[in-house]
Amino acid sequence: MTQASICTIGDEILIGQIVDTNSSKISAALNSIGIRVTRMLSIGDDREAILQNLRNELRQNEIVIVTGGLGPTKDDITKAALAELSGSTGYIENAVQLEIIRKILQARGLDMLDINRQQALVPDSCEVIPNRLGTAPIMVFRFSAELFGHMCTLYSLPGVPFEAIGALNDVLADIRSHFQTEEIYHRTIMTYGMAESALAKKIEAWETSLPPEMHLAYLPDPVMGVRLRLSIYGGTHEADEAKVERQLAGLRKLLGDIIYSEQDDTLQNTVGRLLKKGGKTLSAAESCTGGMISSLMTSVPGASEYYLGSVTSYAVSVKENVLGVPAGIIEKYGVVSSECVAAMAEGVRCLTGSDYAVATSGIAGPGDGADGNPAGLVWIGASSKSCTLTCSRLFKNDRIRNMERFAASALDFLRKMIESDLNN
Amino acid sequence: MTQASICTIGDEILIGQIVDTNSSKISAALNSIGIRVTRMLSIGDDREAILQNLRNELRQNEIVIVTGGLGPTKDDITKAALAELSGSTGYIENAVQLEIIRKILQARGLDMLDINRQQALVPDSCEVIPNRLGTAPIMVFRFSAELFGHMCTLYSLPGVPFEAIGALNDVLADIRSHFQTEEIYHRTIMTYGMAESALAKKIEAWETSLPPEMHLAYLPDPVMGVRLRLSIYGGTHEADEAKVERQLAGLRKLLGDIIYSEQDDTLQNTVGRLLKKGGKTLSAAESCTGGMISSLMTSVPGASEYYLGSVTSYAVSVKENVLGVPAGIIEKYGVVSSECVAAMAEGVRCLTGSDYAVATSGIAGPGDGADGNPAGLVWIGASSKSCTLTCSRLFKNDRIRNMERFAASALDFLRKMIESDLNN
Repeated sequence: MTQASICTIGDEILIGQIVDTNSSKISAALNSIGIRVTRMLSIGDDREAILQNLRNELRQNEIVIVTGGLGPTKDDITKAALAELSGSTGYIENAVQLEIIRKILQARGLDMLDINRQQALVPDSCEVIPNRLGTAPIMVFRFSAELFGHMCTLYSLPGVPFEAIGALNDVLADIRSHFQTEEIYHRTIMTYGMAESALAKKIEAWETSLPPEMHLAYLPDPVMGVRLRLSIYGGTHEADEAKVERQLAGLRKLLGDIIYSEQDDTLQNTVGRLLKKGGKTLSAAESCTGGMISSLMTSVPGASEYYLGSVTSYAVSVKENVLGVPAGIIEKYGVVSSECVAAMAEGVRCLTGSDYAVATSGIAGPGDGADGNPAGLVWIGASSKSCTLTCSRLFKNDRIRNMERFAASALDFLRKMIESDLNN
Repeated sequence: MTQASICTIGDEILIGQIVDTNSSKISAALNSIGIRVTRMLSIGDDREAILQNLRNELRQNEIVIVTGGLGPTKDDITKAALAELSGSTGYIENAVQLEIIRKILQARGLDMLDINRQQALVPDSCEVIPNRLGTAPIMVFRFSAELFGHMCTLYSLPGVPFEAIGALNDVLADIRSHFQTEEIYHRTIMTYGMAESALAKKIEAWETSLPPEMHLAYLPDPVMGVRLRLSIYGGTHEADEAKVERQLAGLRKLLGDIIYSEQDDTLQNTVGRLLKKGGKTLSAAESCTGGMISSLMTSVPGASEYYLGSVTSYAVSVKENVLGVPAGIIEKYGVVSSECVAAMAEGVRCLTGSDYAVATSGIAGPGDGADGNPAGLVWIGASSKSCTLTCSRLFKNDRIRNMERFAASALDFLRKMIESDLNN
């Protein structure tokens, strides 16, 4: 199995200012094509450290992926270190990257400075994969067996996560064409509303009866639910797909509507898909989720087809004056109540003229809660032209997480309502 | 300067299933007492790899902090590997930890199983710092100079973030009493609206003239702007603070209101801080940002003090019927226009009765844009009781990033308006 190491360069990581999220995504991607990651490493912007560590990684791995240290400023020295490591005799300007830099600057109405132009310079010892999302090109250094005892390749990616992850497909394609990779078939099933341990118990017998070549992984996410990933290594796509499809029948029976998608998906995508399918529209009234439901729904391209808009009614006055929640309801039941979210959902549905509406009111925390309600409590309302339903959920006391959990719960509650309408 | 390495053990990290957040927090803590972290490392649950890597780290560092691999299940082998590494002759039961385990189980109504009791067993070659938040004790292995060429200490912490970070204070106290520690002074300045390269050029002369003991780092973030971090190693807090303060005077002159905070901060915090300072309230009308501004503003605890709410007007009908944007404006200028965002901002300000309002309308993409406007274009409006201002910004064609960039631009535009009001 081909071995790889991932090396992150940047003082900001070593002093704890930034969490390295690139390595995790890169390793997952390498893993998916059968490359084994043996180590991840973070080192500082220090020439000696870069050279020593990268030489060591190259000796022990066939693939070394480096991220970071490619910025235009003085503290970024990865490029110079790689030039030295690879015995480059000079720098050459990469025309494709220069053009990308020119366009990026142009789009922002900026002139090209020397410091920008230098970003297109690469050591003459490397090949370039253009970085279409930023200014620093991806550099590919291929080493013959003499230097590190075996043939190996170093890929240097920018540190900006968006650019590093954006370049991954091109890097994987290069790896596929130069190294032995293995076909791995993955199928992901999305579930929401059951904890990992309860889920594991529920499908225990089914899991035990899976054929030996099929592996099941639980990927719990506190916001998007538990992903179940079935994997088969080294088969052919068609045969693997059929095998997995056979097992899924049993899983569907056990889990029912806890499954919200049979592919790697999100709740907001699923809701959008169902709305499109039924030709329906949606609006939202958010209190404790503060705009997150709306933000999630509109993160899906094409959302304007079915998403009309929302009101974030953080203040009581907005609940009453914009959404038309009767003051009497708030007085009698409080804002965190079944009655209030029902009125909010109906209010925003009428205000926007949408077919469906979802509403939230709760206590994200931090603190001890309010009006006898604990932090972590949310009331959710979902309303259609024929009915309005509410439910409550109780999570732990963690503000940011709670806003995400509240939003996910609300989308799941809405998802079940739309699904049930589509099935009837 | 005392050098340290942080080593995370666990297959789940190498296959990309989990992002290692412990290392970042541990390194920030070490950094704060003048311990220099030279490397961070993630390796798998593999005996050979653990032994080889830890020996190597101990040779090169006086302190090695290990997290993970201490769970009760079979795949966790860190303890056995550490026993071997340290030449332990057997295990002893730690009475303090056993008592903690007993209490944890009791609180959950569980009986103590052998597998629980074993968690209190430690190699006889280590000292124990009790883990009050979990079952696996913190193990401290002190090595004399013979073994690794210098005296060094290995701290083994649990992998669960809550427990690892919870144990940090005790570990730092142990480090302070056994190693030379040093003051490191960091000061972070937040800027928005100028690209890293342009910023670097603008402050080039200032940067070159910094005293040699002062280090400047650029930490660009496509959403939150460029952070400038000034660091001084080995001085005293007061003297360093005064030194940095002297240099900041020059920086302020060069950058003016591009600086939005002189501490590590976010735009939403800054806007919230300014609103609180002036005793003012805010609302938002969002089109292309889809709820993200509202979501950012409400992510700050205590936001209800100044944030009233928002309308996400994704559909034209919501712009007209809820926000009261005149149909004539939309007909004549389109929804992505200065006139439309001005009307949106004024509309939501009147609707909610807030002192300030911010509005966005633009084209997040993907695609070629619409009505002659390119994807990446946003119009921003900010409105107070005395005036309404608008501006446009053009970014690249990337939906999710654009929504974040649009929201950040809007918050920055609003920030400048509130700041200017506060100064007049």
